[in-house]
Amino acid sequence: MSAKSTTAILSKLRALMKNTKYVCEPLQAYIVPTGDAHQSEYVADSDKRRDYISGFTGSGGTAIVTDSKAALWTDGRYFLQAEKQLDSNWILMKHGLPDTPTQAEWLTKNLPVGGRVGVDPFMLSVEKWKPLHKSLKANGCILVPVDQNLVDVIWNDQPEPPNNPLIILPVEYTGLSWQEKVKKVQDKLLEKNCYAFVLTALDEIAWLFNLRGSDIVYNPVFFSYTVITRDKVHIFIDDSKLQNGVSEHLKLNDSAQKNGTSIEKHDYNTIKDFLTNLQTTTDKKIWISEKSSFALHSTIPKAKRNHDPSPVALFKAIKNETEIEGMKNAQIKDAVALCEFFCWLEKQVPSGDVTEITAANRLEQFRREQDDFVSLSFDTISSSGANGAIIHYKPTEESDIVITTDQMYLCDSGAQYKNGTTDTTRTIHLGVPTKYQQECFTRVLKGHISLATAVFPNGVKGHMLDTLARSSLWNAGLDYLHGTGHGVGHFLNVHEGPCGISHIVTLTDVALQEGMILSDEPGFYQDGEFGVRIESLILVQKADTKYNFRKKGFLTFETITPVPIQTKMIDPSLLTEQEINWLNDFHSFCQQVVGDEMEKQGRKEVRKWLINATKPIG
Amino acid sequence: MSAKSTTAILSKLRALMKNTKYVCEPLQAYIVPTGDAHQSEYVADSDKRRDYISGFTGSGGTAIVTDSKAALWTDGRYFLQAEKQLDSNWILMKHGLPDTPTQAEWLTKNLPVGGRVGVDPFMLSVEKWKPLHKSLKANGCILVPVDQNLVDVIWNDQPEPPNNPLIILPVEYTGLSWQEKVKKVQDKLLEKNCYAFVLTALDEIAWLFNLRGSDIVYNPVFFSYTVITRDKVHIFIDDSKLQNGVSEHLKLNDSAQKNGTSIEKHDYNTIKDFLTNLQTTTDKKIWISEKSSFALHSTIPKAKRNHDPSPVALFKAIKNETEIEGMKNAQIKDAVALCEFFCWLEKQVPSGDVTEITAANRLEQFRREQDDFVSLSFDTISSSGANGAIIHYKPTEESDIVITTDQMYLCDSGAQYKNGTTDTTRTIHLGVPTKYQQECFTRVLKGHISLATAVFPNGVKGHMLDTLARSSLWNAGLDYLHGTGHGVGHFLNVHEGPCGISHIVTLTDVALQEGMILSDEPGFYQDGEFGVRIESLILVQKADTKYNFRKKGFLTFETITPVPIQTKMIDPSLLTEQEINWLNDFHSFCQQVVGDEMEKQGRKEVRKWLINATKPIG
Repeated sequence: MSAKSTTAILSKLRALMKNTKYVCEPLQAYIVPTGDAHQSEYVADSDKRRDYISGFTGSGGTAIVTDSKAALWTDGRYFLQAEKQLDSNWILMKHGLPDTPTQAEWLTKNLPVGGRVGVDPFMLSVEKWKPLHKSLKANGCILVPVDQNLVDVIWNDQPEPPNNPLIILPVEYTGLSWQEKVKKVQDKLLEKNCYAFVLTALDEIAWLFNLRGSDIVYNPVFFSYTVITRDKVHIFIDDSKLQNGVSEHLKLNDSAQKNGTSIEKHDYNTIKDFLTNLQTTTDKKIWISEKSSFALHSTIPKAKRNHDPSPVALFKAIKNETEIEGMKNAQIKDAVALCEFFCWLEKQVPSGDVTEITAANRLEQFRREQDDFVSLSFDTISSSGANGAIIHYKPTEESDIVITTDQMYLCDSGAQYKNGTTDTTRTIHLGVPTKYQQECFTRVLKGHISLATAVFPNGVKGHMLDTLARSSLWNAGLDYLHGTGHGVGHFLNVHEGPCGISHIVTLTDVALQEGMILSDEPGFYQDGEFGVRIESLILVQKADTKYNFRKKGFLTFETITPVPIQTKMIDPSLLTEQEINWLNDFHSFCQQVVGDEMEKQGRKEVRKWLINATKPIG
Repeated sequence: MSAKSTTAILSKLRALMKNTKYVCEPLQAYIVPTGDAHQSEYVADSDKRRDYISGFTGSGGTAIVTDSKAALWTDGRYFLQAEKQLDSNWILMKHGLPDTPTQAEWLTKNLPVGGRVGVDPFMLSVEKWKPLHKSLKANGCILVPVDQNLVDVIWNDQPEPPNNPLIILPVEYTGLSWQEKVKKVQDKLLEKNCYAFVLTALDEIAWLFNLRGSDIVYNPVFFSYTVITRDKVHIFIDDSKLQNGVSEHLKLNDSAQKNGTSIEKHDYNTIKDFLTNLQTTTDKKIWISEKSSFALHSTIPKAKRNHDPSPVALFKAIKNETEIEGMKNAQIKDAVALCEFFCWLEKQVPSGDVTEITAANRLEQFRREQDDFVSLSFDTISSSGANGAIIHYKPTEESDIVITTDQMYLCDSGAQYKNGTTDTTRTIHLGVPTKYQQECFTRVLKGHISLATAVFPNGVKGHMLDTLARSSLWNAGLDYLHGTGHGVGHFLNVHEGPCGISHIVTLTDVALQEGMILSDEPGFYQDGEFGVRIESLILVQKADTKYNFRKKGFLTFETITPVPIQTKMIDPSLLTEQEINWLNDFHSFCQQVVGDEMEKQGRKEVRKWLINATKPIG
């Protein structure tokens, strides 16, 4: 990994910042955030503008270029990588450290009063635009939308935006037809007295239409926008995506629809003009969430905007029975692959020729053997020893090390199956763990169990449960510096909102509801030595409580990831009787559902491994 | 309790709303909130404007009068009382019920476009003004500050504002001289690059000057404002309060101060003019928290305002060693009184002549026997049976019932001593509790212990601990509809910010810090039958953990309220070994510190009771 020379690129960008062909008045700064026009967490190669301009390839970060300086903000996951990848033109801003200025602080310090800060308004959500605009304004600078993306102008070998073919998911996989989903949105429009809802998040569009794509690696989405009005649906999409029956699936050629839902197809790039016009045709409000881009948001006058959170995000988060069944089945198939993998590791590691990368590759092979496998759901975190303490570690050729029987091994991985998405972390030791490693592991496990078994009334939000996963660590003076859980899509993004379990409270957090699926992943990281994380997916479901105070109704979780937890790592003296019972019940569940699947698949050897790995303790 | 006739009063108020002597343009609505010019939680009789205008005397609520309607918003504590006290001119708005409109919603529905809504700008904090202003504006109405309070104009028998004499607290009680406290604020002014800080909260002023008053019942505060500049202190106070050495204590007559801190005395009513002028004398910002009134806030132009939370609120919340020692001693003396009371109840209740009111009075007598007793710290909640389920119950002559051996008895009470404030709840049964009552009590106790024994890293805010106090109830499908803990002042308000423990997250919540004192008071309420609450005060202190992750430092609590918890109410089979140990250790602590104090006070009989009440269980 070495630094990319950015001198020529920066010089070109600075020239454009003064070029009145692109800007009304010269800019004193230009912001290049990570992102795309849909505010995706991960982006296609054609959208990696920040990587191009700075040389830094991490998944999160923001570049800002002024007339004389260039600075890149990124978080603790990427400090080391950014130091290596940025050349001397760049100042690394370590986000999260107390002395690091915010982007607005740095800008106002470095710009003259009245300084103009440009950004592509498609690349910034309103919820990010607003506070930045406010801070700049309070200090005499101004945030300016620049319609032509300046990086695109100078990026000579910019890849074409992907246009991969789509998969149609039949209702046997989705539980609801797209027409039924559209109807749910239209009911919300009436309820909120709005005329139309604008969908810009790619996973929401994929969910709505029961279509999946592959425009962004690991994220089965496709580039498009959608506008649902009270009586019509508008999709903005490239023609090439409408092959292989997609056009028929969307009934684009049916002139009249019995149930009143007809879809009109538009060119992807016409969305802005369409919205600009749409609001003039109605007295009612247009609904567009603040997670959408400033560019689209600003086409609608403030008085005609409803910027409540997207209803589709919530519909999507609450899985229906078919989606739940699919998710559970996907976890079982994935568990077969993971058991094969751990069984294989136990045999191969002692020979000394398994590295983090070869292990990750072998695991992917096992997954490919499963029905309806589509792709991984994120880069496999295959990490041995000290690498396990790097929370978002991905082995590279430079970092790759041999997995040994002397070190702990942490594997966080997942896959996309046509009927569900998986995300599982297990931490194992193939030799003899130290007492300290066992204590840390057991405390993480206690937190994992405490969350998995929590009972709570309707109305409780995820952040109210975060402490349950930490208490056993806190009691010993330990902690972990990441959230405890995220929503997981149904054959969709492995990270999805709006629910989550974190100590950080967000204003858009919603109450947990029956049918939501989240991860439960406490951890502990001893820098330079080892990492522990135990992650399963948990499904929110009704709790059967002795009483029912004020008929509020109570909820709990069902753990749906049937992958054994290595008992060698556990110090049973730290577990309560209930915790031991939970673990033994969980292992008996793993043995049953995964054992049955192994039997079906004729995998006799790994079944023996499973029976051994799931023996009761205590 | 019967309704007050408000027809004539409302008619007078409506005339004033159109009278250009008081308003520039006619008002279509006038708001009368609960409160005073200092945003006090409880108010003096002279400030009970909402009571006067509506007849409703509860501690919280807002009255709004339009040309043709009058509406009063209050919360669940007061629905019944408000229904009885409001006459037919009034619509009761049950705050917290799903169908109840917000004040802004109701106003915009009932007013014409451009409707003007008046309010006394001294009676509304900026943090309340802003969202109301915004909602009204978004719907075409306008919130108008009306300098002359219209209720004062028509309130013919309005009491004079109280002007009670002050108590000077020597440094043996406070740990710091007022000069040292002023210095701490001045250091903050430099740190924040501000010129002055404006104190409007009465308890902050009392704390700052080591003075106590009695202008508001149970709240040892006095009417005044204070402005601290970088080199001077300005106090706005009535001359009558400066008797009995207060003037000397404040060194008002010393022309020169060695340490540079001199106090200038102003008339109480000149604060607004003073601030209007002050900001013109400096280029730097004036610091005034958003908890201050809109009237004072708006004297300072936006660009010259720093509206960060008050530094004094935080200094006051973090008790110093002297304050902690005083608080602990106050709890011990109060425990003697409470033990006497419970011992007396056990003897007297069987005779059938003890009522909720006579019990409360007897308890007050026991408290008066203790050194440095000043007053109660709030109305004693002395509640038997079903009255215990009314969370803020205060027995009245109408509601008063006999305490029997058939019912549970809940007593939530506290006192002001010169060296500290107390707030304790114990729930007992003087006969035989049912199994269900025992289960509820024991689950509340488990929550109380879970919070009291929590270990957590520096940086954790109170809301992150709230769930610990609820889990044992949630597991059985039970819950309680109030927060778990509030800050408690040192011989000051029994409720103080900025820390607290609640499921409701506030933006102004701060991290828990060593030296803060809070209540730990989970409960359970079976409507129409009984209430359970167990409340002790807990002091935040350093935790001695096995490890210290990233040198964050860990905290825990020390329970400082040594009042026995009735073991008869406990079902030991629901407790873990650790919980039983905690209870036995706690009772041994009670027996020791309170027993010693009883011995000192020569109270032999109650000491026997204490020894019996604190016998180990399990």
